[in-house]
Amino acid sequence: MGLKILEQHQSFGGQQIKYSHESAILQCEMTFSLFIPKKTEEQKAVPLIWFLAGLTCTDDNFSQKSGFQKYASENGVAFVMPDTSPRKIEEDSPDWDLGQGASFYLNATQEPWKRHYQMYDYLTKELPEIVYSLVPNFSGQESIMGHSMGGHGALVIGLKNPERFQAISAFAPISNPMNVPWGQKAFENYLGSDQSNWENWDAAKLVEKTGFKNSPILITQGSKDNFYEIQLNEAAFLAGAKKSHTCVTYQIEKEYDHSYFMIATFIEEHIKHHVNIIK
Amino acid sequence: MGLKILEQHQSFGGQQIKYSHESAILQCEMTFSLFIPKKTEEQKAVPLIWFLAGLTCTDDNFSQKSGFQKYASENGVAFVMPDTSPRKIEEDSPDWDLGQGASFYLNATQEPWKRHYQMYDYLTKELPEIVYSLVPNFSGQESIMGHSMGGHGALVIGLKNPERFQAISAFAPISNPMNVPWGQKAFENYLGSDQSNWENWDAAKLVEKTGFKNSPILITQGSKDNFYEIQLNEAAFLAGAKKSHTCVTYQIEKEYDHSYFMIATFIEEHIKHHVNIIK
Repeated sequence: MGLKILEQHQSFGGQQIKYSHESAILQCEMTFSLFIPKKTEEQKAVPLIWFLAGLTCTDDNFSQKSGFQKYASENGVAFVMPDTSPRKIEEDSPDWDLGQGASFYLNATQEPWKRHYQMYDYLTKELPEIVYSLVPNFSGQESIMGHSMGGHGALVIGLKNPERFQAISAFAPISNPMNVPWGQKAFENYLGSDQSNWENWDAAKLVEKTGFKNSPILITQGSKDNFYEIQLNEAAFLAGAKKSHTCVTYQIEKEYDHSYFMIATFIEEHIKHHVNIIK
Repeated sequence: MGLKILEQHQSFGGQQIKYSHESAILQCEMTFSLFIPKKTEEQKAVPLIWFLAGLTCTDDNFSQKSGFQKYASENGVAFVMPDTSPRKIEEDSPDWDLGQGASFYLNATQEPWKRHYQMYDYLTKELPEIVYSLVPNFSGQESIMGHSMGGHGALVIGLKNPERFQAISAFAPISNPMNVPWGQKAFENYLGSDQSNWENWDAAKLVEKTGFKNSPILITQGSKDNFYEIQLNEAAFLAGAKKSHTCVTYQIEKEYDHSYFMIATFIEEHIKHHVNIIK
């Protein structure tokens, strides 16, 4: 798999490491970042939280802007930050909300995307095995969170894999992509025009169909988020959760926007939510 | 002065704001960022901490990567982050360690730099009056900190203005620029080849000459900092401080490098140091 360390930084007593590797599923070189918490004398087994980033981001945004390392180190949890799409390939779009940086974490079925844009398989079949081998004393416990498009990714991947993810949370997620412009554009291109194929990648539909019983799903949404009304409308997701009796802790935070300043403010609360479940 | 708000984000209950304005001293448009802590019921007067960033940075690096807002809000202190040099002007260098992004926070005397590169005057005469008017209930208490080239700036500006700055701290500062390659290159270009003019901008020389009695100077240095031995050697600064009986708390942090991961890890400690003195 050609794993290489690109950067390594001491951070809050732990290690923030950026890797590259050759992905067999995506058929291209990928990067991801990993945080290993500081070793404690007790040497408890270390759980793993996945963070999926939003449109235009890479593994660097959350690594550099959220301040999560303090709480990850204090609580003895590892974090993995995948990139948001395949890279260094021809298939892309001039638009910032399609192509590289905008995979929507699904398996594309349409040309020209289907060769490389298999992020769901990459995140559920290939990257986990690599990451498990890199976390010293891994406990086997996992959970997932994300932001915006990565909030959609966290909800969808978490709901589809409840045997693996014990907790799910999201910051300002695209929770009903079938019915908002960002999601419709992505699904039309990656999945084709038959909307019956979209439901399998729509968190609102999935939560209605499968539910999630492992723990309450935590969602934080800023009230001054420019994308809130048009792209992030929560009504369908909350309605779907109600139908499947899935507990959702949905909190609107006054004055906060869509930026990492919002994530940084509430990341401690999200990590505590996860740690209570996976430790 | 043409003050404009470019960005405004809620952060840890406070406001992170990015401004632009026309600088009379620098004769160009400048940006700076300001953090106003959350209002408390007690409505105590708000002190102000200045943060000066390093080579290649802008006001965004510390704003986005250090996580300082949590501790600023908890302690009720405002922060101002100036840019690192004049911008949007012709005078620049193809090198990353000279020209725009690399002012060394001094007043240049040489062509072509002397027209715009008057950052010391800008930071001590022009920007303060603007910032004071923007901090609600400003207490009049100020302190200064910085990183690398900004650590040099914080030490020099703090040592030259003890009536204004009650505390000084630095992360991995260039504390003896006269005797290291980065500083020699900058001083040669901005100040000319007469080294007697350099001493007025060298923290090691200044601390020996003037001392600093307001409070201990706190310096944090990572042991795995790539620039440590060649650019950041502390010996001359500590020797100068000893001669003037200036108290310096100099701490080497094992395994840490020159990055914002280091700053983020120790910013809480630095803010506590300042708050103990300016509140």
